[in-house]
Amino acid sequence: MRAFDHYEVGFDIPAKPGMTEAEIQTPCLLLDLDALERNIRKMGAYAKTHGMRHRVHGKMHRSVDIAKLQIALGGAYGVCCQKVSEAEVFARGGIADILLSNQVRDPLKIDRLARLPLLGAALSVCVDDLANVAELSEAAVRHGTELDVLVEIECGARRCGVTTPEVAVEIARAVRAAPGLRFGGIQAYQGSAQHLQTEAERREKIDFAAGRARDTIAALTAAGIDCPLVTGGGTGTYPLETQSGVYTELQCGSYAFMDADYGRVLDGDGARLDAGAWENAFFVLTSVMSHVDPGQAIVDAGLKAHATDSGLPLVWGRPDLAYVACSDEHGTVIDPENSLAINARLRLVPGHCDPTANLHDWYVGVRQGVVEALWPVSARGRGF
Amino acid sequence: MRAFDHYEVGFDIPAKPGMTEAEIQTPCLLLDLDALERNIRKMGAYAKTHGMRHRVHGKMHRSVDIAKLQIALGGAYGVCCQKVSEAEVFARGGIADILLSNQVRDPLKIDRLARLPLLGAALSVCVDDLANVAELSEAAVRHGTELDVLVEIECGARRCGVTTPEVAVEIARAVRAAPGLRFGGIQAYQGSAQHLQTEAERREKIDFAAGRARDTIAALTAAGIDCPLVTGGGTGTYPLETQSGVYTELQCGSYAFMDADYGRVLDGDGARLDAGAWENAFFVLTSVMSHVDPGQAIVDAGLKAHATDSGLPLVWGRPDLAYVACSDEHGTVIDPENSLAINARLRLVPGHCDPTANLHDWYVGVRQGVVEALWPVSARGRGF
Repeated sequence: MRAFDHYEVGFDIPAKPGMTEAEIQTPCLLLDLDALERNIRKMGAYAKTHGMRHRVHGKMHRSVDIAKLQIALGGAYGVCCQKVSEAEVFARGGIADILLSNQVRDPLKIDRLARLPLLGAALSVCVDDLANVAELSEAAVRHGTELDVLVEIECGARRCGVTTPEVAVEIARAVRAAPGLRFGGIQAYQGSAQHLQTEAERREKIDFAAGRARDTIAALTAAGIDCPLVTGGGTGTYPLETQSGVYTELQCGSYAFMDADYGRVLDGDGARLDAGAWENAFFVLTSVMSHVDPGQAIVDAGLKAHATDSGLPLVWGRPDLAYVACSDEHGTVIDPENSLAINARLRLVPGHCDPTANLHDWYVGVRQGVVEALWPVSARGRGF
Repeated sequence: MRAFDHYEVGFDIPAKPGMTEAEIQTPCLLLDLDALERNIRKMGAYAKTHGMRHRVHGKMHRSVDIAKLQIALGGAYGVCCQKVSEAEVFARGGIADILLSNQVRDPLKIDRLARLPLLGAALSVCVDDLANVAELSEAAVRHGTELDVLVEIECGARRCGVTTPEVAVEIARAVRAAPGLRFGGIQAYQGSAQHLQTEAERREKIDFAAGRARDTIAALTAAGIDCPLVTGGGTGTYPLETQSGVYTELQCGSYAFMDADYGRVLDGDGARLDAGAWENAFFVLTSVMSHVDPGQAIVDAGLKAHATDSGLPLVWGRPDLAYVACSDEHGTVIDPENSLAINARLRLVPGHCDPTANLHDWYVGVRQGVVEALWPVSARGRGF
C-alpha cells in the first residue's frame, strides 16, 4: 500500500485508507472494489472461454493500477489507448503491451511514440494513410525500435480508417517493406454501434464491420499477406465480434465500471446491461449542501464532477431520488420525502464513465463502506 | 519567466516559450494574450468608471496567474471561487482577498476554510442556513481566525440562498453574535439569467434579483444591521446589476475568455457579445489527424478536450468550417473545400469556457503566433 502520510486530505487527496464513506471529501470518484473485481473476472472468463484475446481499453479509466488489476485478475493481454501521452503513462507504469488504437500524425508525437519501446513495452499503432508509414518508419529507425502497425479499417462510424481493401493492402505492403515496422494486422472497431439500444441494431452494424474485416483479410491473403490480428469490439458489442469468427482480440473498457448510458443498452434477452451483466462499480460521490425548496436538495457535484455528454447521472440505490439538473458546481436532486439531510452522501452513476474519470485526480476504492485504496487517475488530462 | 528546462514537451507540457503555434502539442488550451489583456483592461475600466468593485470569478479559469493579471491590469479587488480546494490554491498562490461564493457544510471542509486566513488571505463565505453559522464560528475560533460571512439570497435560480428577508436578518444577527465571524453583506447572484439571449429577458431576471436584494437590505436596516456589500453579477448581466443601484461588487469571470455560448448572447443593441464587446481570447488548439470522407476532416479534440454541456465549439476565424460532431478523442469538421491538410492547426472556441479550462493542465499563452507563457490551470480538478 502507498504511504499517504505527506498527503493532506482535501488539498491533495479526497480520502485516506481507513476512512468511512461519510468522511470522504466530495465530489470525488468512488470505486466499489468488490464489484470492480467481479466485473474484471467475469470478462476475463468470457474471453478465455471464447478463445479471444482481451486488450482492455485504458482510455476508459486512464489508470495504471486498474489496468494491472485487469491483467492480474482478468487475464488481459495488454492495454489499448488513444493518445501518445496515455501510452507514455502506461509504458512508464510498466504495462508490457500497448496498442495505440488511433492515428498519430504530428512529428513530435510520432517521435515520442517511437521511443516508447525503449521502456520495455511492445508498441502497436493504427494507420489509415499511406504517408504515415514512412513517418513512423523513419522515427523507429531513428530510435532503433520496432513498431507493430495495424491498418485501421473504416467499418461504419466514418471517423478514421481506410475505406477499401485495396488501400489496406497498399498500406500493409508498405509497412512490410519499411524498416522498423512490422505488419500487425487490422483494427475494425465500430464505435458508433456500442450504445445502440437493441441487440438487433448492434448486430446489423457489427455484421457490416465484420464483413469489411473479412473483405480486407481476403484481399491481404490474395496479396500473399498474412493478417495475424483482427482487433475491435467494445462493451456494447463484444459478443457479436466474438460470434463473427473474424475478430481475434476484444477492446472492451466500460464493462469494468458501467455507467448510466451503457446501463440503458439492452442485451439479447432485452435486459439492461446494468441489470445482471455488469455491476455499477464506478460512482461520483456527492454531498448535500443546501435546501432552497422543499422536495429537493442541492448537491456538490455538477458538470465539473461528471460528464454530461451522455445525460445526467442516476442516484445509485435510491429509486426515490432523481438528479434532474446541474450547473458547474451544483446538482439538483428531487427528493419528494425530504429525506436528505445536509452532508448526506449519495453515489451518482455518471452518464458516461470515460470523460467522468478524466475530470478527477483520484479513484477512492472502497470495500463495504471503508476506504481501502487510493489510485491516481494516472493519465488524466493526457490528451496530447 | 518560469524555467521549463526539466519539462518534456508532450509528456509534461504542451509547448515551451518560443515555439510556434504549429509546433504546439494538441489538443491544448491556447490563450491569445493580446486579446486577454484587452478584455481584462476593458472590464477594469468599466468597473472603475461605474464605481463598482470587481471581484473576478476564479472558478472560470482556476488560474493564479490569470487572477493576478486581472488584479494588476484590471484593478480587480480579489477573487471569488466555488470550492474550498480552489480557495486553498488561490490563498497559497498569494491572492489576498477571496470570497467563497458558495455554501460550505462538510466539517473537514469548514475546518480547511477556517485555516486559510493563516495564509494571509482575507476570507469570506456564503451562508444560507442558520445552522452553518455555529459550524463556521466554531472552526474560526479553533484556528484563531476571522471569516466574513455573506448571507446568500435566493434571487431566481432556485439553487442556493435564503428565500425571505426574515431569514436573512436572522442569519445576519447570528453572525454578528458569533465569535470569529463578521457580517460581510449579501450575495445576490442570479446564475440562470447570464445566458438568456436578449437583454430584455435578462433585465427581467435581474430586476427581480435586485428587488430581492433591496428587500433584504431594508429588513436588515430595520433590524439595525448595516449591509456593507451586495455582490453578484456575471458577464451576461453586469450592466444590469450596475444600473440597479443596489449592487456594489461584480463577479464577472467569462468576459476575460469568452466562449461560444456567451458569444450568442445579445447586448442591448442586439449585437453578439463576441462581436465587439469581448474578444475570443480562449481556444482549444486542435490538429487534423485523418480524412475518411471528402469534405470533412477528423481532428484530435473531442469531448475530453472541450466541454459540450453548452454545445459544440466554433472554428475561430474559419466561417467555411463547422465542427459538427465529436466522440471522446475525435472531432468531425466539415470542410467543403478540402482545405485541411494533416496536422493543420485549428483554434476552436469551446461552448463553455469554465468546464473546458478544467479539462487541461496548462494554458499556452501566445502572442502573434509565438508561445510566450505557460501557466498551470492551478486549481484544475479541485472540486472538493
